Order: sequence, then C-alpha cells, then structure tokens
Amino acid sequence: MKRSFASDNNAPVHPDIMQAIINANNDDFVSYGDDPYTLKAKNIFNKKFGVDVEVFFVCTGTGANVSAISHLIKPWQTVIAASTAHIHHDECGAPEKYTGSKLHTVNSLDGKLTVSQLKPFLHSVGFEHHAQPGIISITQSTELGMVYTPEEIEEIARFANQNDMYLHLDGARIANALTSLNISLEEMITHTGVDVMSFGATKNGLLMGEAVVFLNPELARGFQYVRKQSMQLVSKMRYVSAQFIAHFQDDLWLKTATHANQMARLLAEKIRHIPQVKLTMPVQTNAVFAAIPKEIIQPLQEKYYFYVWNPEMGEVRWMTHFNTTEEDIEDFVKCIEDLLETSNK
Amino acid sequence: MKRSFASDNNAPVHPDIMQAIINANNDDFVSYGDDPYTLKAKNIFNKKFGVDVEVFFVCTGTGANVSAISHLIKPWQTVIAASTAHIHHDECGAPEKYTGSKLHTVNSLDGKLTVSQLKPFLHSVGFEHHAQPGIISITQSTELGMVYTPEEIEEIARFANQNDMYLHLDGARIANALTSLNISLEEMITHTGVDVMSFGATKNGLLMGEAVVFLNPELARGFQYVRKQSMQLVSKMRYVSAQFIAHFQDDLWLKTATHANQMARLLAEKIRHIPQVKLTMPVQTNAVFAAIPKEIIQPLQEKYYFYVWNPEMGEVRWMTHFNTTEEDIEDFVKCIEDLLETSNK
Amino acid sequence: MKRSFASDNNAPVHPDIMQAIINANNDDFVSYGDDPYTLKAKNIFNKKFGVDVEVFFVCTGTGANVSAISHLIKPWQTVIAASTAHIHHDECGAPEKYTGSKLHTVNSLDGKLTVSQLKPFLHSVGFEHHAQPGIISITQSTELGMVYTPEEIEEIARFANQNDMYLHLDGARIANALTSLNISLEEMITHTGVDVMSFGATKNGLLMGEAVVFLNPELARGFQYVRKQSMQLVSKMRYVSAQFIAHFQDDLWLKTATHANQMARLLAEKIRHIPQVKLTMPVQTNAVFAAIPKEIIQPLQEKYYFYVWNPEMGEVRWMTHFNTTEEDIEDFVKCIEDLLETSNK
Amino acid sequence: MKRSFASDNNAPVHPDIMQAIINANNDDFVSYGDDPYTLKAKNIFNKKFGVDVEVFFVCTGTGANVSAISHLIKPWQTVIAASTAHIHHDECGAPEKYTGSKLHTVNSLDGKLTVSQLKPFLHSVGFEHHAQPGIISITQSTELGMVYTPEEIEEIARFANQNDMYLHLDGARIANALTSLNISLEEMITHTGVDVMSFGATKNGLLMGEAVVFLNPELARGFQYVRKQSMQLVSKMRYVSAQFIAHFQDDLWLKTATHANQMARLLAEKIRHIPQVKLTMPVQTNAVFAAIPKEIIQPLQEKYYFYVWNPEMGEVRWMTHFNTTEEDIEDFVKCIEDLLETSNK
Repeated sequence: MKRSFASDNNAPVHPDIMQAIINANNDDFVSYGDDPYTLKAKNIFNKKFGVDVEVFFVCTGTGANVSAISHLIKPWQTVIAASTAHIHHDECGAPEKYTGSKLHTVNSLDGKLTVSQLKPFLHSVGFEHHAQPGIISITQSTELGMVYTPEEIEEIARFANQNDMYLHLDGARIANALTSLNISLEEMITHTGVDVMSFGATKNGLLMGEAVVFLNPELARGFQYVRKQSMQLVSKMRYVSAQFIAHFQDDLWLKTATHANQMARLLAEKIRHIPQVKLTMPVQTNAVFAAIPKEIIQPLQEKYYFYVWNPEMGEVRWMTHFNTTEEDIEDFVKCIEDLLETSNK
Repeated sequence: MKRSFASDNNAPVHPDIMQAIINANNDDFVSYGDDPYTLKAKNIFNKKFGVDVEVFFVCTGTGANVSAISHLIKPWQTVIAASTAHIHHDECGAPEKYTGSKLHTVNSLDGKLTVSQLKPFLHSVGFEHHAQPGIISITQSTELGMVYTPEEIEEIARFANQNDMYLHLDGARIANALTSLNISLEEMITHTGVDVMSFGATKNGLLMGEAVVFLNPELARGFQYVRKQSMQLVSKMRYVSAQFIAHFQDDLWLKTATHANQMARLLAEKIRHIPQVKLTMPVQTNAVFAAIPKEIIQPLQEKYYFYVWNPEMGEVRWMTHFNTTEEDIEDFVKCIEDLLETSNK
Repeated sequence: MKRSFASDNNAPVHPDIMQAIINANNDDFVSYGDDPYTLKAKNIFNKKFGVDVEVFFVCTGTGANVSAISHLIKPWQTVIAASTAHIHHDECGAPEKYTGSKLHTVNSLDGKLTVSQLKPFLHSVGFEHHAQPGIISITQSTELGMVYTPEEIEEIARFANQNDMYLHLDGARIANALTSLNISLEEMITHTGVDVMSFGATKNGLLMGEAVVFLNPELARGFQYVRKQSMQLVSKMRYVSAQFIAHFQDDLWLKTATHANQMARLLAEKIRHIPQVKLTMPVQTNAVFAAIPKEIIQPLQEKYYFYVWNPEMGEVRWMTHFNTTEEDIEDFVKCIEDLLETSNK
Repeated sequence: MKRSFASDNNAPVHPDIMQAIINANNDDFVSYGDDPYTLKAKNIFNKKFGVDVEVFFVCTGTGANVSAISHLIKPWQTVIAASTAHIHHDECGAPEKYTGSKLHTVNSLDGKLTVSQLKPFLHSVGFEHHAQPGIISITQSTELGMVYTPEEIEEIARFANQNDMYLHLDGARIANALTSLNISLEEMITHTGVDVMSFGATKNGLLMGEAVVFLNPELARGFQYVRKQSMQLVSKMRYVSAQFIAHFQDDLWLKTATHANQMARLLAEKIRHIPQVKLTMPVQTNAVFAAIPKEIIQPLQEKYYFYVWNPEMGEVRWMTHFNTTEEDIEDFVKCIEDLLETSNK
C-alpha cells in the first residue's frame, strides 16, 4: 500500500473511533441530534471548554467554517483572513457564495495574522461605499503548520472586540496546536476571547467529525436554522456524536495529535541532515515544509502521496497523522536519500 | 428500547453496510474521491442506470437536492414543486438561499405533480417582470408515500423538455418506489427523461449515503465545483463509497426496500380492521398515513416514535424501514388496540 | 398620441416636479446624498410622518422592497405576502435572489392579508427543518386597488410584533390609499405599527422617486450599506430629493392622487351603465377592474394601452393617473361603447 | 457656491441633456423601455459601436457592473480585477453579494492589469478546491485616470478568450478614455474583444445614465431578467433614453469629455510649477493625483470639495468635469498658492 504524506485526512479511521461507531449501531434512535449520544457528546464539549458552549455537529470543515461565519456576519461586512487561509484558498469560494460577503486577505508567510496587519481595515469603517470589517478568521494551527500562542489570539480577540468585529477560529487541526503548546482548550480558546470556532476531528482520526462551537451561547441563537439551511444537518447524527465521545475518551484526541506532531518532528530531524533538502518552515505541528531538488519530486510521488506547495522553488508539504509510524518516516527518508543519490550519479 | 415509526432514518445502519465500512478501514487513501472505492462505486452506478452517468457523492439529502438544482438553474428561473415537497417544506429554505431562485408550489394531496398543473406556469414565459420556469422537481416516492409510474414521469419530462426546463427527481426513497412497482432503475429513470436525480440511501440502511446523478454527463460539467462550494465534499469519501458498493451488492438495496414496504403493507392490513382507525392514503411504499382518535396520540407516542401529520384531523405518519420486524408491527398494533380499549372505557 | 390606462407609470412627469428638477440644476454638489436638497427632503419626511424616521432614497420600487426586506430578515426566515403581491408576482424573483429567503404566499382575492391567514405560519416556529416566519409584507393600496384601514394594518402589526416578526408595507401607491380614506400618513402608518415601508412616488408624477422609510430609526442601523450593496445608491441624488420636495410642496402628492382616484371612480360610474361590462372589484383608488366582452379587447388595445388581467374571464385592468382627464375617460368610454355596438351587429 | 474637484458626478446636468428630458415630457408612454425614445437610443448605440450590440439601461454604475458580471459568471468562478477597481473597492461588496463569486485582486499602481499578472490564476484551473477564473474586469479609464491602449485591451481579451474567461470593461469614464487617445469606440471596444461593458454617462453630464452593452448579442440572452431581478429596471425609461440620445447628438459626449480632460491637463500644467506640489500620476484623462503639503489639505477642502487619496503621503485626487472652467482652475491654483504662502510664513 502506498503511504500518504499528502494530508492527515488520507489516514484511516482510528480503531477506537471505529469501535464507537460499531457500538452505536444498536437500535432505532431519533435522527437529527435528538439522541442520547449527541446529548452526551455535547456535555463533553462543555467540560472540555470549561464553560457551557453551544455545539453543532456539521458535515464538512468547509461547512463548519462557512456556516459559522455566515451566522455572525452581514453581507455588507467583510471577513479578514490570511492569504493562505483555507476559507480563501481551498473552499472553492464557498464563503462568498454562502455569506455574500467580501473576503479580504492579508499576505502572510506563516499563515498567521497580526493586529498591525488588521488595523488598516479600520479606514473603511463608516464609509458606505466600502464593505465594513465584520469578522476576523484565524486558523489554528495554520495551513503552514504554525501555532498562535494564547497571547497572540487574545490580542486579536481584543482588537476584534474593540472594533465591533467577531473572531472566528478555524480549528481543523486544533488538537495539533494544543499538543504543540501543551496547553488546554480552556487556555487556548475559552480564555482568549474567540467567539466561534470550527472544531475539526476528521483529520485527527474520525470518519467524519466537524463541529461549530459558540463560546458565547447568546451568539448561537438561530444557528440551528443556519445549519439546516446550509445543508449541514446529518440525519443519523448519533454516529457522528459517538465518534466525538470516543475522540475525547481518555484523551485519545491529544494522544493521536501528539503522535502526529512527533512524527513530523522526527521527519524534520532526519531530513535536516540531508544537504540537498531545506526546511522552509519551522515544524510546530504535523506539517513539514521543505524545498527539495525538483528532479526527485515526481519519482518520490510515485511512491508516496504528497503535494507540491510551490513548484517554482521545489517546495513540498508533508503531513503526518495518527497512523504514521516511525518506520514510515524511516522508509520515506531512505527513499529520498536513494532518489538523491540516483539523481546525483 | 423504543422502536421508531417516525422516519426510516431512525433506523440503525444495516449490518452489511457496517461491515463494508469496517473493511474499508485499512490504510492511507487519497481523500475527496480519488480512491479505488469511489471509482468502483461509480462504475456500479453506471451499470445500474444502464448508461454512463455522472455520480457525485454528497453529505445530506438536502445537499443533494440543492446542489443539483442550483447547478441547472439561473437565479431568475423558478423551481416548480408540489406543496408537500421536501425541498419546499423541510429544508429550511435551503433551495432559495443557495440558488437565489423562487420556488413555486402546486397544491397536491398525494405529493405528485401533473402536467395540467404545470401548464399555467408557461404564462410567465418571456415576460421580464416574472421569474421564468426553469426546473420541475418531483419526489419519488413522494412525501406521502405515493409512486409515479414511468409513464407519468415521462410525461412530465417531455413537458419539461419541450419548454426548456429541466426535470429533477428527489429520490430520497428511490428504492422503495422501484420495489413498489417492481421495475428497474433503467425503466423508471434512464428511459423516462429525468435530467438529474438525488439518489438517497441513508433512509435505506446506510450511515450516510446521498448522491447526485446526472443522466446526461454534459449537464454535469462543472458540478465538481458546485459540490465543493456547496460544502458537500466529504474528505474521507471512501467510507461513503464503500457503503454504496455494499448497498448494491446482491441487490441489498432492493431487499431492504422491499422489506420496508412489506412492513408498511402489513401494518396497513392490520389496522384496517380497527374501526376507530382510518387510512388516509393508499399504502404504496413504506409510509402509512392514518387518522386515529386524538386522545391516543400522546400515549402512543410515549411508547413509539412517530409524527403527527395533521393535528386537526388526528392524522399521523408511520414509516417502516429495513429493520422493522413483523413483531414490531404486531406489538404496535396491539398497543393501539389496548389504548383504544382503555380510552373507550 | 395614444393614451394609457395600462399603468400610472405610463404618465409623464408632473410639471411642478419637472420644474423642481430644472431648478436643482445649478452648480456642483456633493453626490450620494450629502447635499442640501436631500437634507431638506428628509426633514419633510419627518414632518409628514410626525416622528423622526430614517429615509433612504433608492432607484426602483423593486429596489425599495427588496433592500428593505433584506435588511430585516435572516435567510432562514420567510416573507409572507399575498399571492398577488408585487414582490411575489412582478419582481422576477428579486426578493429570493437578494434575501435568500423563502417567500410564502397566501391566496387573496383583493390583495389584502388577514391575521387569520397568517396564524397557520406559526406552526413552523422553532422546528429547524422549516423556514421561520420573519416578515409580513402588505401592499397599500393593493395590486387590486383595495385599501387597508388603519385598524386592519394595526391588527397585522400587532400580530407581527407579538410573534417576533416585522411588518413591511409596500407603498408604491401610498398617496392613493391615503386620499381614498382621507386620512394622514401618521394615522395610516406612524400609529399603526409598520416597521418599514417602501414609499413610492414615481407612479404619482415623479420621474423617479422611491424611498425606504424606517419608522423606528434603530432598525435602520447599517441600512446605508444595504442600499449601496443592493445597487440602489444614486450618485446625483439631489435630483431625486428635489422631486420629493416638490412632491410634498402644497400637498401636491395628495392632489395628484386624489385626481387619479376621482378619474377611476368616474370611469367606474360611466361603465357601470354598460350592460356588457361588469366591474370585478370595488373601486377604492385609481384602479378599475372589469370583465368585458373578449372580442373588444384587442380593438380597444389598439387605441389605448391597458393590460388584460385574466384572459379566461375577459378581465382587464385600467389604471388612471394624475394626468388622466375627464375627456380621456369620456373618449375611452365612448370607444368601448362604439366597439360594443360594432361587435353586436 | 463651492466648486467641486471631488468627482465628476458632483457636476450638474448638462443643459442639452436637461433640455432632452424636458422635451421627452409630453404624454403617456409605455414604461420599462417599450417606448420610441428607448428604441431610438438603442439604434444609436449600434451605430456608435459599428455592430449590432445589445444595450440595457440600468440605474447605477454599480448596478451595471454587477448585473453584467453576474450574467456571465458562475458562483464558483472568480472575477479578477485590479486592487484599485471600483468593483472591489467602492461597491460595498455588491459583486460578491449578488454573484456569490470570489473577487481576486491584483496589485496595480495605475489601475491597469497586464496578462503577466493574470497568468498565475491559471494554476487553479481544474482543481475543485479552488474557485475557477471566470471573468477579467478592467476599468477604462482606470480609477487612477490611466488609459489602456487598444493593443493592451486586445491582449487581455485574447488571454481571456484562450482560457474560457470573459472580459468585462467598466466604462464609467469611457468617453474620457476615448478622447484621451482620440480613437473611436469601434477601435477601442468593438475590435479588441471586450465581451460586455458598463457604459457610463452620468459622470459625463447626464442626470442618470448607465448601460450594460453586450458586444456579442448571444451573450445577452436572458439578461432582461437579470436587469429586473437586480432591481435595475427603471419604469419611466424614456427619460433615461432621451438623455442618451442627446448625449450622442453632435458628439456631445466627446466634447464634454474632451473639455474635462483639457481642464485636468491645464490644472496639471499649472501646479507642476509649484515646488511643494508633486504630481503622483501622469494625467491622461480628467483626474489629477498630487502630493501636497498635508497642512494645506484641510484649509483647501474648506473652499473646494475633493478627496484625500492617501493620507500618509498627502496624496489627493482632483477630478474635473464638463462644467469645470478655466477660471475654476485658475482660482483653485491660486488658492493653493495662497495657502502654501500662508503656511510657509
């Protein structure tokens, strides 16, 4: 079988998660979330966040981002995000289609936004010809594998709050960010001022597990209609909820994320010693960005799945996941070394 | 455990389907559909339809309906549907939100449309103040459990074709319709002139299985972007595709649907003999509509899940599914009889 | 020249209005409404409504309706209107396109809604599969020329208010309604509980004059952005504002509307005596609906502009306007009589 | 009266245009464009373009841009425009709201796009996660007052055509561009490959005059519905059409634009000699961009209307129009000189 460093969603379903699905398959239950699994899963979310949040399970990561943002924005407001943001670059224009709002991007090398980059957008405030800043969206960990510190999030949240904007956090890889800093969800999210987050678990071992979490339940009012109208309401929801229960059971989610991060660090350490390979980003989570000789890209892709990030500079992205093994890393690095040797001859 | 006659999506996952999910959980695979399971599932669809169709797996039934319709309509065109249609009544306005189009409804007692009901909409053609008829959407089997004959579908398709409209078919319960008439998908869909259909399988034993099927591949051009933009592109798609493969394996889908229909017929036969209960619709598929004494509705709901359809007349809807047993029916009827007896005292 | 009974917007511009445009053409002024004409016009609106309202001039009647509604609705809410409403029947789906909301219609013979027709929509409240009632939209005078009494408006407004809905009033012919009942804008609008109205003047002698008026200025917050985003912000706004100033000067608007209404009554009185002609609606404003022998429709249309309302029953609509003369009416009636005589031979 | 260099839409209506409005005010006419003025105006457009085009009069410049673009794009496609483009910067997000499409911007100092800036967008073609390039929108003359040569337009049109994209041209100041290069509409538009243009005349002396022009009538199919649905269909259209007739009569439009351009050149020449003032853009049409000492900006704005373009560098924009006189320029320059002298003391 061909191993994949293309994305953490190339991984299979974690055995514990699969077992939870199987266990849930045991009789009739009311659909659309009015079942005991969903109730239990919601309670676990409250516990993890340390406050009563409002949680809505949805179908896809794009669905989580777009429905969350659409709920808190008006069409004449804008979403401000990094140019690398998934909502800008990888959702086929879904945010604009569904919200009707303009998406403003800020150039960012590591995928992170700073308040100094956000301030210029205040120039438009109050001028009717200009769309008005409405939501700031950050990704944690970023599409470049980097992690915001709680202080950085807090600073952006304060800026948003002071300027009548909301802060959305795309947490498709939230567990990788948490374990990278070794802090809790409370420290990273609850206490920093995030208004709403997309809570992703599919990339961390679920078959399908995405949620929209409102930190302030008041803001969630009416979101049940948004979820349905945005085509994100799963009928047999118990099978999603059961996965989330298993996800949090005995800190499985942190263990799987820790492992994925470790595998990325291991990969980074090993290739750091190869002279023809250059890391192009620090490795903080489960993503490794590296520039490699262009001539080995294609032969390497024949043996492993991965994406070319920047063809001009031969930059590639390698993602690790809960199921990546040390042996996978060793084989992969060996394959690179062999290809380099061959191409040098 | 409380048994459910509320909806066929209250059923669990069929064991064969669950086994297929488990079997698919075996290594890294490229996400978003570029995997061998999805390729195989698509080929099976071609075989079942008897022609090369274009199939796209999506997340939800609402997602299937809305994405399909939005692809074939312009915002200044209308969708014409029965007043009982799921797209009008049960999707929280998702079609209007996503297509921007007006939805025109036609009153229908059995959920079916006829050409004579459609003709008046031609009056608007060419008048710029009026939204223009664009798509006819029919449901098979209807929300009232009734089935269009192939001739009826063909007549509507011809009308659509002659008037530059498209015909969409919401097949959330397509298997129940097929087995009700004991005809093939080719006879019902391929040869009648349907342009695009929502192919539902979740209500027929899948964990999650919905697809958009274009009968004419030309019409599908660009739909991959619509699926992504409408937030319907599942990342770990192999787990959906594997379910569809099992769904069609050894005609499982027809067996499960046949069983569900039989259980509805059994229920109808048994209650027909109860004087205080009156069937309000013929039973053609897996839905039983009946008027029952209002005073037993609540006590019955305490023991079984089901919906009240028309509170004024005490009409209720009972749905059966692949997992409903003869014993379930007998217990349920007995429970009704007991409640009637008690209430008569 | 062919005279028109087709619509009151077939009339020319009233001479006083034209003079106001000419007088405003006298130097540079800041565009988009920051000019003294617009300031003055807004103050007159406050005076006419008897309270401080928020007024926004827009381009078209459809623009007024759609922008107003879109500002007060969420996409998962519905607009409830009469089946004859301009927003449903004559705006090419603009409300659905721009708001993304479902439009629910209620059958109405005279174009008026009643609370008893509205109550059934409350059944959907709180059920996430159903779009939620959000706005009630009434037309004053209706598309059938009928007028709501203040008591009727107040009853609907109270119902809206009690059920967390807003009341929009399409006042494309507001002056005709006011003069029909001989009451003030305060009595009809300010004190009845309308939340927002489309204030039309184009049909009453302006070149172009439509406004959105929020009775509660709080509700108008942010509407300047909606107006711009909905493409309704005119650059040389002083020429619109100057027309509105003249419109209200010395009660011109009431005089022109009174005249139009009188001409309709005159027409109704005269044709009432023709045995082959039957009025199909009471005449309360400037619209006359009548059933006439089908064979004279076309010959009559060759001499006068007017619309056939219901071809099956030979029903036609004749609109009068500020510039319709008694002589026009006499000639028109004579023409009808001549045609009837000819066709009887 | 305070003279304005703020925008060419601060000018009054040209006397010939006003006379045309007055002359059109003479009887009943069918509304919405089915009148002899509109027919005549359309024929003149055909003549000016040298081919049969499809012309639709609309209400606003934003309305022209958005309706035109929405007609030729799919929601999952993108509009590519300069970062300075009116559609991106000055329309409050109207394009995103109405089309649902992403707007991609390219940084541009002079407001012009080049093919080399467009090529990178082809990387997304065929990848379902990325919105697909659909329309290129250029502004002629640009928001910075610069003019594309026909060769430059042709090169972009060819690129669009080769890559299945459409070319939209925002011609809010088309006459200023034509007279700047002293070429014909045929040379600039008809023969270069533009697919659709927004033809603006309001900034060139009309009360209200904007049109959407399809160079290929096939592409216009159905646009009458788009115009209505986008709230851009004026009822008393004859008054718009009459203005356009006068606009083209005896080349009035070119004379007024030539004059406006000359006044800008005169202003540029005069201030060029003031050492503290620096032109920041070449003057090709009726816009002058200059950096002036920040301390005189406010006192100068007390006497004249104009906008600050870049507050950090003291850059201002001065627009001239058909009604700007040599004396206006002289007074304005004198005022600047006086303020500079005062501030130097």
